Amino acid sequence: MIKVGIIGATGYAGAELARILINHPQVKIEAVVSVSNTGQQLDDIYPNLKEILPMTLEGVDEIIPRCDVVFASVPHGVSEEIAVKCKAAGTVLIDLGADFRLHNEADYNKWYGKEYKHPELHTEAVYCIPELHRDEIKDAPIIGNPGCYPTSISLALMPAIKAGIIETDHIIIDSKSGVTGAGRGLTQGTHYPDTNEAFAAYKAGAHRHTPEIEQTLTYLAGSPVKVTFVPHLLPVNRGIESTLYCRMTGKGASMSAEELHAVWCDAYKDEKFVRIEKLGSYANIKNVKMSNYCDISIHVDTHANTLIISSCIDNMVKGAAGQAIQNMNIRFGLEETMGLNMIPPAF
Amino acid sequence: MIKVGIIGATGYAGAELARILINHPQVKIEAVVSVSNTGQQLDDIYPNLKEILPMTLEGVDEIIPRCDVVFASVPHGVSEEIAVKCKAAGTVLIDLGADFRLHNEADYNKWYGKEYKHPELHTEAVYCIPELHRDEIKDAPIIGNPGCYPTSISLALMPAIKAGIIETDHIIIDSKSGVTGAGRGLTQGTHYPDTNEAFAAYKAGAHRHTPEIEQTLTYLAGSPVKVTFVPHLLPVNRGIESTLYCRMTGKGASMSAEELHAVWCDAYKDEKFVRIEKLGSYANIKNVKMSNYCDISIHVDTHANTLIISSCIDNMVKGAAGQAIQNMNIRFGLEETMGLNMIPPAF
Amino acid sequence: MIKVGIIGATGYAGAELARILINHPQVKIEAVVSVSNTGQQLDDIYPNLKEILPMTLEGVDEIIPRCDVVFASVPHGVSEEIAVKCKAAGTVLIDLGADFRLHNEADYNKWYGKEYKHPELHTEAVYCIPELHRDEIKDAPIIGNPGCYPTSISLALMPAIKAGIIETDHIIIDSKSGVTGAGRGLTQGTHYPDTNEAFAAYKAGAHRHTPEIEQTLTYLAGSPVKVTFVPHLLPVNRGIESTLYCRMTGKGASMSAEELHAVWCDAYKDEKFVRIEKLGSYANIKNVKMSNYCDISIHVDTHANTLIISSCIDNMVKGAAGQAIQNMNIRFGLEETMGLNMIPPAF
Amino acid sequence: MIKVGIIGATGYAGAELARILINHPQVKIEAVVSVSNTGQQLDDIYPNLKEILPMTLEGVDEIIPRCDVVFASVPHGVSEEIAVKCKAAGTVLIDLGADFRLHNEADYNKWYGKEYKHPELHTEAVYCIPELHRDEIKDAPIIGNPGCYPTSISLALMPAIKAGIIETDHIIIDSKSGVTGAGRGLTQGTHYPDTNEAFAAYKAGAHRHTPEIEQTLTYLAGSPVKVTFVPHLLPVNRGIESTLYCRMTGKGASMSAEELHAVWCDAYKDEKFVRIEKLGSYANIKNVKMSNYCDISIHVDTHANTLIISSCIDNMVKGAAGQAIQNMNIRFGLEETMGLNMIPPAF
Repeated sequence: MIKVGIIGATGYAGAELARILINHPQVKIEAVVSVSNTGQQLDDIYPNLKEILPMTLEGVDEIIPRCDVVFASVPHGVSEEIAVKCKAAGTVLIDLGADFRLHNEADYNKWYGKEYKHPELHTEAVYCIPELHRDEIKDAPIIGNPGCYPTSISLALMPAIKAGIIETDHIIIDSKSGVTGAGRGLTQGTHYPDTNEAFAAYKAGAHRHTPEIEQTLTYLAGSPVKVTFVPHLLPVNRGIESTLYCRMTGKGASMSAEELHAVWCDAYKDEKFVRIEKLGSYANIKNVKMSNYCDISIHVDTHANTLIISSCIDNMVKGAAGQAIQNMNIRFGLEETMGLNMIPPAF
Repeated sequence: MIKVGIIGATGYAGAELARILINHPQVKIEAVVSVSNTGQQLDDIYPNLKEILPMTLEGVDEIIPRCDVVFASVPHGVSEEIAVKCKAAGTVLIDLGADFRLHNEADYNKWYGKEYKHPELHTEAVYCIPELHRDEIKDAPIIGNPGCYPTSISLALMPAIKAGIIETDHIIIDSKSGVTGAGRGLTQGTHYPDTNEAFAAYKAGAHRHTPEIEQTLTYLAGSPVKVTFVPHLLPVNRGIESTLYCRMTGKGASMSAEELHAVWCDAYKDEKFVRIEKLGSYANIKNVKMSNYCDISIHVDTHANTLIISSCIDNMVKGAAGQAIQNMNIRFGLEETMGLNMIPPAF
Repeated sequence: MIKVGIIGATGYAGAELARILINHPQVKIEAVVSVSNTGQQLDDIYPNLKEILPMTLEGVDEIIPRCDVVFASVPHGVSEEIAVKCKAAGTVLIDLGADFRLHNEADYNKWYGKEYKHPELHTEAVYCIPELHRDEIKDAPIIGNPGCYPTSISLALMPAIKAGIIETDHIIIDSKSGVTGAGRGLTQGTHYPDTNEAFAAYKAGAHRHTPEIEQTLTYLAGSPVKVTFVPHLLPVNRGIESTLYCRMTGKGASMSAEELHAVWCDAYKDEKFVRIEKLGSYANIKNVKMSNYCDISIHVDTHANTLIISSCIDNMVKGAAGQAIQNMNIRFGLEETMGLNMIPPAF
Repeated sequence: MIKVGIIGATGYAGAELARILINHPQVKIEAVVSVSNTGQQLDDIYPNLKEILPMTLEGVDEIIPRCDVVFASVPHGVSEEIAVKCKAAGTVLIDLGADFRLHNEADYNKWYGKEYKHPELHTEAVYCIPELHRDEIKDAPIIGNPGCYPTSISLALMPAIKAGIIETDHIIIDSKSGVTGAGRGLTQGTHYPDTNEAFAAYKAGAHRHTPEIEQTLTYLAGSPVKVTFVPHLLPVNRGIESTLYCRMTGKGASMSAEELHAVWCDAYKDEKFVRIEKLGSYANIKNVKMSNYCDISIHVDTHANTLIISSCIDNMVKGAAGQAIQNMNIRFGLEETMGLNMIPPAF
């Protein structure tokens, strides 16, 4: 059994990690950590776990040496110190925050307003969306788990970029995220009466996931990719839908809808967690909720020569905890899908 | 492996049965049935099951002989014919409808407006809330799976009735159910804009679950129990909360909140799926959602000598599909909790 | 024109007062007050009011002398000092908080944990649900505006109590309130992902509105009335539904549903803001939303001799701001319905 | 008083027309019509109108001669016959359906699959978004009231197109609409449990509002404009948010955010119902709900040279009934804002 520690267990991603790992056949949840709630019971804060995971929240330092792997879901700027301790203890770190996602420190400085204190750690850390980078983390001591928006977007675009059928200097991305994406912390913007029956964009062209999206797409394209990314807050608990707009180019400009559709089907034919909708069907967040699936649908606006892709994930699962467990499975040589057999409910 | 057939697989309870049974380690879903959609793919109707359960919907007759057990989730009046066929084939029937719940045909006539066509079947059928009747179904050919409201209510009241601490001639039950309780069929009252941001009672004192509730409570009390039952439609997908109001009597009249609380803790101390909240905490539908748990909290209004019980279940799981699988496990000698290890999500 | 000041204008009740008063033909909103946001623009905090009410938030002291009437929607314990200043300035005070609702200081001490600092003010203050006490406030310097739950409950029960047809020693009240009832302040319990798709009771038998409810019912009955009151948090923005359970007695015990229904129709036949549903129809919060109406429906459970009443209001309008304006209209000799002609939307 | 008839009064747009017109100071609602519910009471179908508008539904033919103006909210293809009757009676027709929106019959044929039976009527009919075409309807016998999406989109883009600062051959429009936009008719896709906690695109690049959008934008630009339009179904009752993505060109390419913002402020400085957000603020459907406002916010993605516009309306008011009344006011020489002073609620 792999001994797992969850740092930031009282946050939403941490709670979701706990929920999924409880049923993982090769995992023992060794410790749950919360800096601000040390000593409390996790199941007092999350009564859904009552009688299921009756564990006491501990501090960071005492748990790292006891664990084979630690998941950290903490504010950016905090993970580096955890990484130092993990390295010292020989514990693998899977970081769900932003500290180990960007390869370029200048991007981190610009978008997160912080500097690396331990630059050497970042050369060892590997960013991994499993479907795109799984071979790179086999021995990684630190895994940078992707952001929720970048996951939904990178998976949607990979086949187009690999096939070279879209213009890559101006991709439009209109994303909508459920409110759990904003975390458990209280804000006026996530107070129920201010959120319910409401809808708006936020951080248009200025969201911190932009450099991460462009980093992955540029990696896939082999040349710079530029996107305009606008997220919106959606009055549901879970789910991200991203609608992407691309101008078709090269052989893409003359491909039929059926041929385009086949590009995605082919690209993901061996992937368990990526499902391509039939032509004419639409990806919907309700069909991936509570699961590790990413559903993608392909649409063509022939009158304006535009490819439209809709991509849906559960932001807390494929966009956070589920993908982190998928990465753990790869890193520890387990079946990649182990413990991730959650079936999305129909309603 | 137990070969299972699901009749009424396109209804909400049927879809939920499929979702849960997919991960049951001792079950093979042999067939899915829909009278009105025979020949279609179940995963076209429920795209959440895409690539997970790619099965074609069949007719009733061809599947019964192939199955060890059949779950039927069909309108009342339809199950009797299915039962006849199951008997002939030696297939166990677990009926999620109302046909095999009431012991008294006169009650069935009065509340459902129909007559028994095969009265002999009803003498063999056994109604079973596992925590209350599990010993009775070990050999039953037909199991009447309880209604959602009666499950939440009977589990809440059992300890009080067994202990003889409440008046049983006038129990007030105020229940609130998520919209899946009304099924997948279209009605104006479940049209999104008519349901969202709305709330009302319905069938006050006249809901068909009333005789089923009184039947179980009378069985537990050993003397007639009378309730006033008012359901309400709650604008959420899943979950039933029932708030019950009882006058305390006998030794109950002088018991402290702590003593009363202990009665419930003690009654359910060996039950995996019933959780009693700490004194001062409240059962909440969000803590049982997507799971087979029933959470119960106990409150005392000393100034009016009233015991208040709040009971929460997921109407589609403990109130329908999950409980049916629990009954199947008992009937087939499996671990009662097998395949029912779904952890309720925190959000 | 009546010059109006709103103290606590950034709270939900204050914002709703502003929204309604803007269209009141005899009112000029003279000042809006917020202790914690003085100097800010109200329409920056509530962008719905942009270009409609571009007013700067002021402090309490400077505005009272400029106003004919002041509405105060502030935490309990704060209104007394406002009342002292209003008295000095000859300004009428309509208090939407709890300070001037209870006639008995001992009740206030017990339920709110505070003492009166200016007991003499309380002898002059008048509590007023217009349909029940409108004659009492014609000259009142201070009006205690009722709580939201007590309004929905008192209006529902008045006809039964006046007619002497129900037992008054044990009335069961099961209420459900939209989330605006909890105010604009941030709490974990009203954080969107914790509230959405959730439902639970709270403060069972222990809510502060209990003594206010019993005070009004006792006043109507002329003898002590005792209730068990359990509120629940409903995942909608607005609306309270209260389901009440009464044992019928006296002539009530032999009255038909039609005769009972006629009691309510008759009691409210001259009231513009109280609507009695036809027999067989149910009050629904969606039909009173955004309006000053109270809808009431009557149901009889003959098999258990129980009268069931369902009562719906918009907690922010008839339960707070609208009723306060109704009280202002009475106090200033205007048409009682003036400025309150909001039509509830169908969706 | 203007005598008004509402044809299709039991649909959502019809019900909203009734709700708003009740308080219009120069209108008398003379008749309400429903083909399928003739003889019933409107307030039985919409209990929100109980005791407020107790009118009996009539048939089409008998009411037209009694009315100065008729609003028709009926399926496409039905309005032409109503128009013939209105012409004969000298009654103005304001059509909320699609029959009189498109200038080009070929577009109507292509997108709606029908032909004009009375082509001459279409030469007299005038399409009118008041802020863009108000001078054209002063004497029009038939007014084509705009679609909800086209209203939100055309108002957002007008200043950019008039100023010639964006490329007009490839505008991306990502719209999200509340469920009332789908009407009152029952469909699986608007059944509560299928819609709640769900989100998806539909009719990507293929929605019938596309030619109407391009028609208006082309009219404003004086040369062909091409758009890619993708609507999404949003789990709220009311509201449309459209996010638009434009490449900046001409002098637009070198304008600062402040200069761009000023273009919108200037274009709408005299318009009561269009509000431009401060730079840095975002339009939100909650701030326009239940009102006739259109809120627009301007954002610039400098790194990708993209202008982002967010535009919000209430689809049932500015997107349907409110705009129709605004058109009526213009047509009958009344103050354009008369009867449309609804203040959007804060929650």
